[in-house]
Formats: sequence, structure tokens, C-alpha cells
Amino acid sequence: MCNNAPAYTIHGVHHHCGWDRALAPVRTVSPGTTLEFECLDASGGQLTRTSTVADVPNLDFGRINPVTGPVYVDGAEPGDALKVTIESFRPSGFGWTANIPGFGLLADQFETPGLHLWSYEADSLAPALFSKVAKVPLKPFAGTIGLAPAAPGPHSVVPPRNVGGNMDIRDLAAGTTLWLPVEVAGALFSIGDTHAAQGDGEVCGTAIESPMNVVVTLEVEKGAAPKMPRFSTPGPVTRHLDAAGYEVTTGVGPDLLEGARAALSQMVDWLARTQGMDPLDAYMLCSVCGDLRISEIVDQPNWVVSFYFPRVVLS
Amino acid sequence: MCNNAPAYTIHGVHHHCGWDRALAPVRTVSPGTTLEFECLDASGGQLTRTSTVADVPNLDFGRINPVTGPVYVDGAEPGDALKVTIESFRPSGFGWTANIPGFGLLADQFETPGLHLWSYEADSLAPALFSKVAKVPLKPFAGTIGLAPAAPGPHSVVPPRNVGGNMDIRDLAAGTTLWLPVEVAGALFSIGDTHAAQGDGEVCGTAIESPMNVVVTLEVEKGAAPKMPRFSTPGPVTRHLDAAGYEVTTGVGPDLLEGARAALSQMVDWLARTQGMDPLDAYMLCSVCGDLRISEIVDQPNWVVSFYFPRVVLS
Repeated sequence: MCNNAPAYTIHGVHHHCGWDRALAPVRTVSPGTTLEFECLDASGGQLTRTSTVADVPNLDFGRINPVTGPVYVDGAEPGDALKVTIESFRPSGFGWTANIPGFGLLADQFETPGLHLWSYEADSLAPALFSKVAKVPLKPFAGTIGLAPAAPGPHSVVPPRNVGGNMDIRDLAAGTTLWLPVEVAGALFSIGDTHAAQGDGEVCGTAIESPMNVVVTLEVEKGAAPKMPRFSTPGPVTRHLDAAGYEVTTGVGPDLLEGARAALSQMVDWLARTQGMDPLDAYMLCSVCGDLRISEIVDQPNWVVSFYFPRVVLS
Repeated sequence: MCNNAPAYTIHGVHHHCGWDRALAPVRTVSPGTTLEFECLDASGGQLTRTSTVADVPNLDFGRINPVTGPVYVDGAEPGDALKVTIESFRPSGFGWTANIPGFGLLADQFETPGLHLWSYEADSLAPALFSKVAKVPLKPFAGTIGLAPAAPGPHSVVPPRNVGGNMDIRDLAAGTTLWLPVEVAGALFSIGDTHAAQGDGEVCGTAIESPMNVVVTLEVEKGAAPKMPRFSTPGPVTRHLDAAGYEVTTGVGPDLLEGARAALSQMVDWLARTQGMDPLDAYMLCSVCGDLRISEIVDQPNWVVSFYFPRVVLS
């Protein structure tokens, strides 16, 4: 299934920062075509290996989260599913994680900018160092995979929608198959926002943001549009992370968002207290490797959201 | 760490169906004591091996979710943490899963009662059959582990609280350590609601509800009360489930609860369509083995909640 050879490369110069059914396709392909996409990082090249935290507040949000495309798939019509087989990634070895003021699950608690630059081995994908206490297992994926929405006009690239987009689902890794509902003729597929690693939730708002190339195969399943994105993973999804078990905090209460915030906040405190980490560093580390799960959503009126931090990162 | 020999057994006759700091302790123990608790099933014995679906609407809710205890731990004071080491389980081999009208994440879509009786091998814990299409890996845990709240008077046993209670966290399995905040002298520890298996969320409202004995060790950490329950797992938490990968549906939108409902509802539809399952059966099956995760909680204004169904269950 994986490693089909791409027939075309869509270069990063062909990117857009919003969804719009009126965008001209970069290329038209037949169903079944395999393509390589050159994906920029989520800052659109504004953050580089020489950036400092002083660059974070100056980010131009008009250039945020570029996606490469769109590609028109012949024969795709509203009501069809676009089946996206995620074949492989060619990571760059460079990445960044930032706390961008006003953005992130604990934005009210972390109002100052933060920046961590990552350097990792693009071939071996060996766990990458974060300060002196943490080493993060890597698993590349594309945070944004989507189609043009039916509604005319430009749409922000930030929120995901039924047609996909900025879903930031960390298990959309190599070997995974994704089905998206087609809303316009040709589907108008784009991809970007590549990440070298991320936990479930992407809690500080950024992952290990990293430019890389992605190879996908695009097929059409007639009349098979899912209501919202659906995917299938070929095997386990957390074995790169779970060997040493987890430290887990919980948020108990009637609101899932507040529960998630409480669980995360307590994990940041735990990392600061037990590992001597700066809380802002702990918050950014949680974003790249820790997972938000809904443990219980039926015992009225209180739900339990849990934050799972993989202990292997600290070993 | 595991399999400490218990010094005492607290029998199931010593159970209560609500939390109250005024309840007389069944026993007073020193910190460090290991005890075995005989836990009733969540119906308090109302559902048995000979029950039928006709018994579900007649359940007496006053007898629901009994917990065995309370145990007074000498020296535990408000502000301390009660450290609970979950040593081992002695499962009974019998269990039930029910759809109880008015209860569960899709209560509005599944208004008729449902009941599935399980028979499993208590020693080997081999995956248990559900209809003809599914075989569910088992991993026993206690759904309800808690302490008496400081606030006087009786409190419903249904919702979890900061002091724990009906948390239904499926990873509170053997070998796990749990810290709960003590709010009253002696902590007043109780445990029950034992499950042979459950997914993250317990989406239909019940798991594989199964009477079993639990052995725990209770210790006191002075002045170390967590804000809310915290736990530590000794190793991976999903390897009994994840070998064949997952089928995943998503719920995209501005509300996490509605996102969870959308993801689950689409998984029920997928199981019905591809496996020929009755939707009510699919809903109950999701509750015992499928997981709700928060994939993304920062891309305003839309979050992504994903429902992960482990494919090994269908193989």
C-alpha cells in the first residue's frame, strides 16, 4: 500500500492560506494518481533555524498554515468520497514549537511567547531532544488535509470542517487511509501543516512544526461521502510512545473543555514540580507528546477528561 | 508492586450507594495495609445470568452502583493524598452490558432498552464473544474508586468528583497507582463498579459490568493532595486492543460533547453498514472497546473529537 512512486510533485510555491472553491487547480489528475506534495511549515517560512522567541509576536497571521494545492481529481463530484492513502513522508530535520499569545488551550495562563527549535535526524527519526529532561519520539503526519468547501468565498484555514482541513489528527501518519466528503467538482485537494510529532489535542496550539514532503494517492469512491472525515490505521498508533507507561492527570466536571484545561494544567504543574521544568516549556512539551482522552462522558453531570503524558519521554 | 497478600477482606454486604462522610467505617486500617474488596456488579445483583432485556426498565436506581466500604485509614487528614496501589483482580466470569433508556451519550437515539450477557474465562481473560462478529479483549478495572467528600450529607454515587468516585477510567487496571485528595479524617475509601472491559468514554453508559474482587494497598502521603485524581500506569495501556489498528470516525465542530456524539454516531452507522450489526448492538459494543479521544482542541472555533474502534475486535 505504501511507497507508491509519485507521478507528479506539487511544489510549495503552489500554496494557499485559505479554502476557496474558486481557486484555480495547480494540476488535474485521474483517480488513482500518486503525487508528492512539498509542504511548507505552518509559519510559511517565517520561522527558521535562526529564529528567536522575539520573532513569535511578529508572525504575520495572513501567511499562517499554508497548504499546497489544490489538485483537481477528475470525476470527483459532490456526494463522493475522496480516498486519500497517505503513503510516505520525507521530513526535513528542522522543526519548531511555539507558544503564540492568544492561541492554545491555556492561552489565559501562558501569555508570553515561547519558541523551541528542534533539530532531528530526518532519516532515522530518532527521538528528538527537548531541553535536558525530555526526548520525544517522532511520527510525522500532515496536520491539514482537506478539500474545498461548497460554500463560496474564502474560508479561514484555521478551523477544520466536515471536508477536513486543519484537523491536526496525529494518527494520520504513513500507511493510514483517510476518506473525505467531496463538496465541489474535482474535490480540490490540498495538504500541509506537516508535523514531526504531536499529542492528541495539540494543546499549546503548535506541534513540532516541520516542513516536509508528503506522498499521497488520491482515489474516488462514488456516492460514498462520509458525513465527516473517517480514517483507518494499518496498525497500532502509540507504540512509539507507550512502552514506559503514562503519568495521567484528570479534569472532572460538567464541561469537557474545562475538564481538558484542568487536566492539562495539572500536568504542567506536575512536570514543573517533579522535573524542574519551566512551566512554559512543560506546556509546549505536553503539546508535542501528551494525549487528551475522554475517560467518561456518561456519569451525569460530571465527565472525566484525562491527560496522558508518556513516561518514555522522560527516560 | 502487585500481588501483595491482603490482610483483610471487606465483603460485599458492606456496600453503600452514595457518598457520605457520616457513614460508619467498616474497618480502620494502618497506612500501608493491603485489603481485598468483594465488589458487587453495578446493578447490585439485580441483573444475573438469567436476566432478560425485560429486566432493564425495572432496575431500581436506588440500588445502582454500590461500592464496598468505607475503610478508615489511620492518620489520613484533609490535605493528604491517599495513594491507592491497584494490586490485582479476581474476576467472576459473568458480566452484562445494558442500554438503559435515558442514560448514555446517544440516549436520544437509543430509547429502547438493550442487554447483552457476557460469559468469559475468569482465569485466562481470553477475549469474550459479542454476537457472532466481535470478540472483545478484556482488561479488568474498578469504575468507581473514591473517598468521602468534605461536604456533609449524602451525595449521589453517579457523578465522579474531585475525590474520585465513578470515574470509569479504563486504565485503572492492575499495577496502576492512583492518588486521591483526602477531604475527611480517615479518607473513607470505597471501591466498586468493577468492569471486565470498557473503552474510553463508556459511551452507552455501561461497560462489561462484572462482579469481582479487587486487592488494593492504601498509603498516605502527607500534605500531597492532588487537586483532582492523578494516576500512573506501569506500562502500555492499549496493547490488548491495538494490534490490528483502528477504524476512526470524527466529530468536527465547536462543542466537544456534540463532537463526541457525532463521532460515535458515525461509528455506529459504520458498524451497522459494514458488519451487519444491529445499531443498538453496535452502540453497546462501542462502549466496551472503543475510545473517545480529543484530536485537536486549539484550531478555533472547531475542535475534533475522534472515536477509535479497534479492528482486532472484528477479526
